[in-house]
Amino acid sequence: FVNGKFCKNPNLTVADDFFFQGLNIPQSTDNKVRSLITGVDVNKMPGLNTLGVSVARIDFAPNGVNPPHFHPRSSEILMCMEGELYVGFVLSNAFENRFITKVLKPGDLFAFPLGMIHFQLNIGKTPAVAFASFGSQNPGLITVGNAVFGANPPIGPEVLIKAFQLDKKTIDYLQSQLWFNNRI
Amino acid sequence: FVNGKFCKNPNLTVADDFFFQGLNIPQSTDNKVRSLITGVDVNKMPGLNTLGVSVARIDFAPNGVNPPHFHPRSSEILMCMEGELYVGFVLSNAFENRFITKVLKPGDLFAFPLGMIHFQLNIGKTPAVAFASFGSQNPGLITVGNAVFGANPPIGPEVLIKAFQLDKKTIDYLQSQLWFNNRI
Amino acid sequence: FVNGKFCKNPNLTVADDFFFQGLNIPQSTDNKVRSLITGVDVNKMPGLNTLGVSVARIDFAPNGVNPPHFHPRSSEILMCMEGELYVGFVLSNAFENRFITKVLKPGDLFAFPLGMIHFQLNIGKTPAVAFASFGSQNPGLITVGNAVFGANPPIGPEVLIKAFQLDKKTIDYLQSQLWFNNRI
Amino acid sequence: FVNGKFCKNPNLTVADDFFFQGLNIPQSTDNKVRSLITGVDVNKMPGLNTLGVSVARIDFAPNGVNPPHFHPRSSEILMCMEGELYVGFVLSNAFENRFITKVLKPGDLFAFPLGMIHFQLNIGKTPAVAFASFGSQNPGLITVGNAVFGANPPIGPEVLIKAFQLDKKTIDYLQSQLWFNNRI
Amino acid sequence: FVNGKFCKNPNLTVADDFFFQGLNIPQSTDNKVRSLITGVDVNKMPGLNTLGVSVARIDFAPNGVNPPHFHPRSSEILMCMEGELYVGFVLSNAFENRFITKVLKPGDLFAFPLGMIHFQLNIGKTPAVAFASFGSQNPGLITVGNAVFGANPPIGPEVLIKAFQLDKKTIDYLQSQLWFNNRI
Amino acid sequence: FVNGKFCKNPNLTVADDFFFQGLNIPQSTDNKVRSLITGVDVNKMPGLNTLGVSVARIDFAPNGVNPPHFHPRSSEILMCMEGELYVGFVLSNAFENRFITKVLKPGDLFAFPLGMIHFQLNIGKTPAVAFASFGSQNPGLITVGNAVFGANPPIGPEVLIKAFQLDKKTIDYLQSQLWFNNRI
Repeated sequence: FVNGKFCKNPNLTVADDFFFQGLNIPQSTDNKVRSLITGVDVNKMPGLNTLGVSVARIDFAPNGVNPPHFHPRSSEILMCMEGELYVGFVLSNAFENRFITKVLKPGDLFAFPLGMIHFQLNIGKTPAVAFASFGSQNPGLITVGNAVFGANPPIGPEVLIKAFQLDKKTIDYLQSQLWFNNRI
Repeated sequence: FVNGKFCKNPNLTVADDFFFQGLNIPQSTDNKVRSLITGVDVNKMPGLNTLGVSVARIDFAPNGVNPPHFHPRSSEILMCMEGELYVGFVLSNAFENRFITKVLKPGDLFAFPLGMIHFQLNIGKTPAVAFASFGSQNPGLITVGNAVFGANPPIGPEVLIKAFQLDKKTIDYLQSQLWFNNRI
Repeated sequence: FVNGKFCKNPNLTVADDFFFQGLNIPQSTDNKVRSLITGVDVNKMPGLNTLGVSVARIDFAPNGVNPPHFHPRSSEILMCMEGELYVGFVLSNAFENRFITKVLKPGDLFAFPLGMIHFQLNIGKTPAVAFASFGSQNPGLITVGNAVFGANPPIGPEVLIKAFQLDKKTIDYLQSQLWFNNRI
Repeated sequence: FVNGKFCKNPNLTVADDFFFQGLNIPQSTDNKVRSLITGVDVNKMPGLNTLGVSVARIDFAPNGVNPPHFHPRSSEILMCMEGELYVGFVLSNAFENRFITKVLKPGDLFAFPLGMIHFQLNIGKTPAVAFASFGSQNPGLITVGNAVFGANPPIGPEVLIKAFQLDKKTIDYLQSQLWFNNRI
Repeated sequence: FVNGKFCKNPNLTVADDFFFQGLNIPQSTDNKVRSLITGVDVNKMPGLNTLGVSVARIDFAPNGVNPPHFHPRSSEILMCMEGELYVGFVLSNAFENRFITKVLKPGDLFAFPLGMIHFQLNIGKTPAVAFASFGSQNPGLITVGNAVFGANPPIGPEVLIKAFQLDKKTIDYLQSQLWFNNRI
Repeated sequence: FVNGKFCKNPNLTVADDFFFQGLNIPQSTDNKVRSLITGVDVNKMPGLNTLGVSVARIDFAPNGVNPPHFHPRSSEILMCMEGELYVGFVLSNAFENRFITKVLKPGDLFAFPLGMIHFQLNIGKTPAVAFASFGSQNPGLITVGNAVFGANPPIGPEVLIKAFQLDKKTIDYLQSQLWFNNRI
């Protein structure tokens, strides 16, 4: 065991420990945010343990969004494979939450620095596909809306009312939504 | 220069490079969130460069909140010095955004893991004070509401409408707020 | 400057620092090895500095090979996008140079651990394309044949004769070849 | 197990793994050095494993000293909470053991770089209290006098006679002292 | 267990965990490459686990070669103890495989950067001895010829024919050799 | 510049950046401690910058001691080359300053873990020589006696009187000694 994951003796590893199949298969985006992330990290490819790299495929329906989120343990490079994506990330408070954005077409790359909140929106009329590269075998995913409004059990509404300057009714509405985890 | 910061030859360092004064002084919490973070990182104490540690003081008025935020480059230990704080953090999507929470009284410590969204709320009737310890000379601060709804320039509302399942009017309202950066 | 690369103040960064265009464009494989690597690292995308991630596109003509090589500063995940690739890596001496291999079809992923010698061969009848993800902004590339037989100036042949148990004539032949660097 | 410590599945963690109580309570300084360190590291707060941060409280009687010591795995920021402390650290041989010192009053911070020998002395007439922040979940503590003169079994006196240019009698006296470990 | 190695509680360690005997003893170089590496890493000295350092002794018969190889997890400093060694390393493709070389006599040091292919050849008339220092408790060793031509099972010859621009017969010859692992 | 040291473009490096001559030459031990360390770190071999490794030679006259010291940024492996050395290191307070010791003869190795106080004493009748390997290009050296009793300016004697339980006269005597830095 290394990093809490099983770590095979190199004498016993087999090719399948380093192999994953099917990242070319479009996944259903029939959900609230109309996008789906298919992550391939150390949990799906055991040979990645200690290798410091992982990937993901992201499918977007037209108007589908990969909602604002961040990865606590990795930067990311996203490549647009199909469609047209409006992407961006927001700098930290010290840099006045400056927003850096771009429209990506197939073959375009964009980098999201470690821990910065970012998103992608399919602004084309067709499905879009992107691939993401990470510098960690376990980058993690925290979708901001899910963590803040969909926590289990819920965060006390008095925190959110004050923090987001919203009335109780709007917070209640937000907390009662189904916060879909768009990553498999 | 190391890490983009000026790095003195050790022969030229003076005691004041490692010194900071006044973290005992209560700061005004006369702002929207009724809290204020006084951070002491490498920007205020130049000797911290490469040392991998920094601290902060947080003042809370009654009902003051340090709104949901995270640090992209450090875990944190918070110590309650005065008052009574309701604190918590939310695990990542992979752990179903489980919410872990505690009420802190003076002398109580609570740890927030790297990159997890967390907050503190003063639930006592008096001002509260806390001290935070970080394992980075430059932990960074991203207040979720500020980054998502207060980005400069603003994130396209179509992203936020979909991501937060809110109507245009509520998003407009949120984006028109003054998102106060409660850290000095 | 950080890592010997220019490091912009975050206040001055622009979207283009994090952007790269055209990784969808097939590159000419009209060279000796019939393959071409288009790397996108910190040298081409300056915003990657300190982010710990980079990518590459690899084009293969039929029978094209990305010859045995390794990356001194990163593991790799390769995704087959088009065509059919025979890929493999060799474990270190301590594990008796065990060879781990796989045939990849579109959508298949394979991981190459840090520093292990690996290769890809297009065994299909059509061009093949792959994308590589790295956990470093500057993974480096050392093609074994180029480094050993194409060094500048050449390694003394007496070293290579002994090391590879080849006669002087074969070594001379090898050292007189054009060792094409298939990475741009 | 990670780092030789038990590492819970995040699904099984509870708030108490991240919680510690009572750091506001003055500890008895009724010992030879008239000071006591109450450390809170991964051994007392299991949730700190892999988080890279820990803290300590230090109590000083009047004239109490936290004797010259260092932390093999972390820098430190010390905050004076009560009383008046004379503090300092000594640079390495390459910088001619330059001594950098300061007097701290409540609210003053001072940083001790990784591995440098440092100390604190209460020079006020009342008890003093300080809090220390570390950039490691397990910074370690090596009190110089304890390690050199109080090792178990003792270091051969011929080493210490030569190294400290002291006579056998003084070394014998030093090695026969009770070297109190002022950390709990 | 840490790093997949047994990690003793410091309370249970004994001096022998940190001790290794006999690195002064010349080893037989009666093998194909006329050299032998005696490595002392975490596998032979268990106390090295997590310490980030290891060493090796290398014996060379006259004309003995330590064939082109690299260490995937460490840089190296080599010290010539006896004899006369022709040593060198080759920079990566990005630096046009520039070859940097030197002749070493007793007391001379030469550094080989992380992951760069390097070798040593005894060009004197007597046996030579060198000591190597590594910045990892487990630097690894990949001998280029062994990994490329002596992999188990063998790499498909079509890869090597193309990659090395050699005819099938020469590749067959190379793959049929005994690739001696000169490290114990 | 990287790490505050000049960092050459690899295109401009020359073999001499990676070369150091003369570590076989005995150095004079005509000093108070009768030992001398000849360190070869990034300050003497500029090519070591970022390589994470360095070495040293240590000469001992009969009865010479390399007094209790530690390296703030590296573990060490020591190899006895000539003579007979009594060596040891002391564990931290948490392990009750347990002392781990060994007598080394030529060809014997001993490892000193990161930050632990250690020493070597020549217990033979002839000069002794040792070589040390470090896992940092700049391990640093802090000789305990020099830092504590030879600091510049001196540490206030009231600190040392209390910390070492010595009378003012002995402390005055200790502070008035010439604390020889035995490293060049």
